[in-house]
Amino acid sequence: MVVKVYGDRLSQPSRAIIIFCKINGIEFEEIRTDILKNQHHSPEYKEINPMRQIPAIVDGDLKLFESHAILIYLSCAYPQVASTWYPDDVYKRAKIHSVLDWHHNFLRRGAAGFIFNTVLAPLSGIHSYPQVIIQVEEILLRSLSKLEHVWLKDGPFLAGNSQPSIADLLLACEIMQLELLSEKDRHRILSPYVKVVKWVEDTKSAVAPHFDEAHELLFESQKRFREQMATKAMKTQARSKM
Amino acid sequence: MVVKVYGDRLSQPSRAIIIFCKINGIEFEEIRTDILKNQHHSPEYKEINPMRQIPAIVDGDLKLFESHAILIYLSCAYPQVASTWYPDDVYKRAKIHSVLDWHHNFLRRGAAGFIFNTVLAPLSGIHSYPQVIIQVEEILLRSLSKLEHVWLKDGPFLAGNSQPSIADLLLACEIMQLELLSEKDRHRILSPYVKVVKWVEDTKSAVAPHFDEAHELLFESQKRFREQMATKAMKTQARSKM
Repeated sequence: MVVKVYGDRLSQPSRAIIIFCKINGIEFEEIRTDILKNQHHSPEYKEINPMRQIPAIVDGDLKLFESHAILIYLSCAYPQVASTWYPDDVYKRAKIHSVLDWHHNFLRRGAAGFIFNTVLAPLSGIHSYPQVIIQVEEILLRSLSKLEHVWLKDGPFLAGNSQPSIADLLLACEIMQLELLSEKDRHRILSPYVKVVKWVEDTKSAVAPHFDEAHELLFESQKRFREQMATKAMKTQARSKM
Repeated sequence: MVVKVYGDRLSQPSRAIIIFCKINGIEFEEIRTDILKNQHHSPEYKEINPMRQIPAIVDGDLKLFESHAILIYLSCAYPQVASTWYPDDVYKRAKIHSVLDWHHNFLRRGAAGFIFNTVLAPLSGIHSYPQVIIQVEEILLRSLSKLEHVWLKDGPFLAGNSQPSIADLLLACEIMQLELLSEKDRHRILSPYVKVVKWVEDTKSAVAPHFDEAHELLFESQKRFREQMATKAMKTQARSKM
């Protein structure tokens, strides 16, 4: 019996779960649930996750959604997972939970919100309000600053750890979503945070070659999205000159 | 040595931690960090929590923030806490994590967002955009529906449990924040969800008398806020007739 992983590699938490299973030798079957085709809204998928979100897993009788919960579960249920991923020590574990909770409320809101409002919404014909874009960019920049100055203050990995934990994997995959921006925007937003940039590289190396492999689809989409955004910008410019 | 709890009983996660310590006989010192007076932005508090948010705890050498992380830590570090609060069983624990993660992204965003934009922002002279209010109300209503039809489907407490867990306490305190709305709005939003209303009462009873005691400040504020909102509405009405 293998773990069934329902996800889409365009989604950052789906990639984190796939990388985690591969690096830890957890046998899994990846069931692509294409978000751009709304497959997470199918009646079959509702049986897996009534919240209709990806990722989700099925492991025997257990159906589980929410990526943090999934990685904690896999860390505890599969004995081959090294304890550095999710420490047994109550203090170290508390710090990992603290990072994970902070991720939900800040980095994820900022990064996913910014990508949605500046890339995915315009390309899908959904209107984004300028004040919303300003707000999510502020959250994103503040989150990157906290990553740099708080979470990466005491060591190469989050919360002062010397080895990556599930928090590093989840948050590094979140940062990778910024690859969907134009090169100029990505550079403007990310490059001031040198520790963050180095930490993403270190996390990537620690789980090589699975990180790059899981991100191939993202880079394919990057190319397509950047071309579409450039065409859109040219059209808007031409229209404003008419 | 007792746990120091930095919080403000106007904040829903602060109340959850206080109630949890009381019902489990964890000795603690409550250090009020008044959010309306911006005490969470003081240099002293930054040493406790560099994210400048409440609640936070100090337990010996450990400084910890994020309420979910705090309640998980207290459940594991204090042996007198019954395992029903945070089950040892890996499957049951996974479900609790799933509820807690869902809380961050849905119920909390909806409830706290709605209260901020319809009560706290107007009373503080902060402009709220109508489209933002529509969006957070939608998230709130969808979250209440998921609470009713998914999380409370299989038992009196969340995720099919017969006893309350830390998830029940945290989410019930979140719902209580809706007391800051006008009676009409609160009734309109909450009353269709009969299981949710009953579950809040059951959670309250399970931790009596600490739930009511921890919410006294909220009800005092409710009275004041409702009067202020009514005065504001009357002034707006009078101005529109001029």
